[in-house]
Amino acid sequence: MSIITLTTDFGYKDYFVGSMKGVVLRINPHAQVIDISHEVEPYNVAAAAYLVKASYPYFPEGTIHVVVVDPGVGSTRRPILVEGDGSYFVGPDNGVFTYIYQEVKRVRIIHLTSQEYFFIPAWQKALGSTFHGRDIFAPVAAWLSKGIDPLKFGEEIREPVKLSLAEPRWVEDGTLEGRIIYIDRFGNLITNITRTHYPAANVPPKADETDQWPVTSVKVILKGKVLALKHFYAEGKPGEPCALMNSCGHLEVFINLGNAQQQFQASVGDPVMARVKE
Amino acid sequence: MSIITLTTDFGYKDYFVGSMKGVVLRINPHAQVIDISHEVEPYNVAAAAYLVKASYPYFPEGTIHVVVVDPGVGSTRRPILVEGDGSYFVGPDNGVFTYIYQEVKRVRIIHLTSQEYFFIPAWQKALGSTFHGRDIFAPVAAWLSKGIDPLKFGEEIREPVKLSLAEPRWVEDGTLEGRIIYIDRFGNLITNITRTHYPAANVPPKADETDQWPVTSVKVILKGKVLALKHFYAEGKPGEPCALMNSCGHLEVFINLGNAQQQFQASVGDPVMARVKE
Amino acid sequence: MSIITLTTDFGYKDYFVGSMKGVVLRINPHAQVIDISHEVEPYNVAAAAYLVKASYPYFPEGTIHVVVVDPGVGSTRRPILVEGDGSYFVGPDNGVFTYIYQEVKRVRIIHLTSQEYFFIPAWQKALGSTFHGRDIFAPVAAWLSKGIDPLKFGEEIREPVKLSLAEPRWVEDGTLEGRIIYIDRFGNLITNITRTHYPAANVPPKADETDQWPVTSVKVILKGKVLALKHFYAEGKPGEPCALMNSCGHLEVFINLGNAQQQFQASVGDPVMARVKE
Repeated sequence: MSIITLTTDFGYKDYFVGSMKGVVLRINPHAQVIDISHEVEPYNVAAAAYLVKASYPYFPEGTIHVVVVDPGVGSTRRPILVEGDGSYFVGPDNGVFTYIYQEVKRVRIIHLTSQEYFFIPAWQKALGSTFHGRDIFAPVAAWLSKGIDPLKFGEEIREPVKLSLAEPRWVEDGTLEGRIIYIDRFGNLITNITRTHYPAANVPPKADETDQWPVTSVKVILKGKVLALKHFYAEGKPGEPCALMNSCGHLEVFINLGNAQQQFQASVGDPVMARVKE
Repeated sequence: MSIITLTTDFGYKDYFVGSMKGVVLRINPHAQVIDISHEVEPYNVAAAAYLVKASYPYFPEGTIHVVVVDPGVGSTRRPILVEGDGSYFVGPDNGVFTYIYQEVKRVRIIHLTSQEYFFIPAWQKALGSTFHGRDIFAPVAAWLSKGIDPLKFGEEIREPVKLSLAEPRWVEDGTLEGRIIYIDRFGNLITNITRTHYPAANVPPKADETDQWPVTSVKVILKGKVLALKHFYAEGKPGEPCALMNSCGHLEVFINLGNAQQQFQASVGDPVMARVKE
Repeated sequence: MSIITLTTDFGYKDYFVGSMKGVVLRINPHAQVIDISHEVEPYNVAAAAYLVKASYPYFPEGTIHVVVVDPGVGSTRRPILVEGDGSYFVGPDNGVFTYIYQEVKRVRIIHLTSQEYFFIPAWQKALGSTFHGRDIFAPVAAWLSKGIDPLKFGEEIREPVKLSLAEPRWVEDGTLEGRIIYIDRFGNLITNITRTHYPAANVPPKADETDQWPVTSVKVILKGKVLALKHFYAEGKPGEPCALMNSCGHLEVFINLGNAQQQFQASVGDPVMARVKE
């Protein structure tokens, strides 16, 4: 229980991340602090939620994931600890853990209230209200990594804030209307359509398909354009808009060696259709 | 004594930081190397000085902070080690440790001259003159982390270079003229006015104020605009220019969910007034 | 053998690097994962090759360097492990290790085929084809760091892919025509002319030169402009285009406190001439 990951919108130019690392190491010098990303778009809770979902399953049991995209810091939004399936998550109760609530069978959520585990800079007389990454989330994670029982940090709560994540919907027989939920560095457009939707809809894979995704029997459409379905990026001709099932199990639009976001002028929220071919 | 932090203007795309980490680990494989920031604006010694000030107090005693914003590398500027209050700082003598000299009661400053603790790449015959981050500061930090006595690295010196940091000045009774000294990723404007200025001026907090900052009795003005004083970011209405006392004890101008730098077209050096209300 | 470095074009905003780190730590919680750079220009194999060359020599023996700039992921390009001079390199066989083949006397190259050392996410039934950084390179590096014999990962191969790196050529007596091979964060232009070219051409240094580079007896020309030769950056007058022998032994064009790339509108591939003065 000594790996602590950090995912924030603090960027790389300032002192925010550094002071969080300092607070962790001051409490537990043996903690291994691992950067996931500090380039989450400022205030974008949904993007942070996707990053957490996409990275936590690969870490060993007992890893503590600190997530600080926290525009409501200082307000009445609650600081929380989420525990489930052997992983721990520490951050604001603003929906950033929505996917965890969906994916993990049993979660326990603690409202962080025990000030004895918070950090109060020497020159302040009370808990600050502008930087809970440093003053609440980092120290709680560090104490947790030293074996403090989660229930020592506060009381269990049952109704955390959840993002209303757009779920794809079946608009007509065999056509799924999804949305772009995330755009990565390469301009790839990640949708909320996953490999679980087609089996659920009883669309069995054809002989030349893997059992993971109906590559030849489904037609993907973005902004009126039908996309070629591929298994990997280099299969696409340069400049050709394509789609594949990505490494997190989501349908993703890409252009090999290009940038789909720019070519399609695409934004998070844009619809993507996946239609079963007749 | 085995945590070594790095703060540089080397950015994230090149090999500079990687080779510094390699040199550290080659000398002390047990050192824990922690990135503070490598996105200091190129050659901006004042910005680096602020980052060091804002992050070092949170690290455990014995931590070694390596700071390399070093436009004078190879010239006569001295490489130094600064020791004080249980922290160590290694970098160029160009003013980057100015805040440390202000804040730490007793510092000892060593001019790094013992070449036996420097790193000379195999293909060179003498110390290089273009990359002291790799060839002086990283190896000295690594040897220090192994317990080498600071005085082994060179002679003590007494007159380090200091930045003439603009101090706020009282322009008329009860009005403090400060300046923007740093702008962070969110476009927040950090000033040199701190929570120590008002108590020093005998402006006691009113009943509804914390004892840290006279929120209701002071008026903050930037470019002719009076700013609302808040305790935390989410208190500001979206789009409304506000100010608060930030997590490092500095008066800071912000716009909740917005960008004060862009809205005010503000730059480092711009004046900010804080006037006691009548 | 427990330091693992990462060099990728995955950037800092996404989950890619985080999930690689997770996979490493899941297999070997004692590995020390060190970021070299994740800001390699997307798909730019040559830039990654230069970064690896410029950083690996500074790490301790036994360090494992994972390099993932891999536009061909999923295609027939081979995943490989390169071993030489006590260092290990793991990545795609796309030329990213070209400099290693040039510099290291004896390399052993293994084609990674043993799926038992790969990572297959629980929800997949077979190796994925879109993210070998997470599914092949990270786990192989982690297993290697635990002492697995390189030959367990696959068969030795002898003809790896190499980049046809432009070598400088002597265009007339005493004039070397080189090219810009890399541009760093500061806009410095790194060429393929190294300190080994002049001794090889029997141009002995003059009395006031170091034995590393004929500073006074060579004239460097970029886009028709003759550059002043210097030993370190601060020797250049602000705005004055200069050249020096950089910290990796390459001839580099720079402008002190400025940006040579912008001033010269320079690009990778542009010619740079170095002429022996008469």
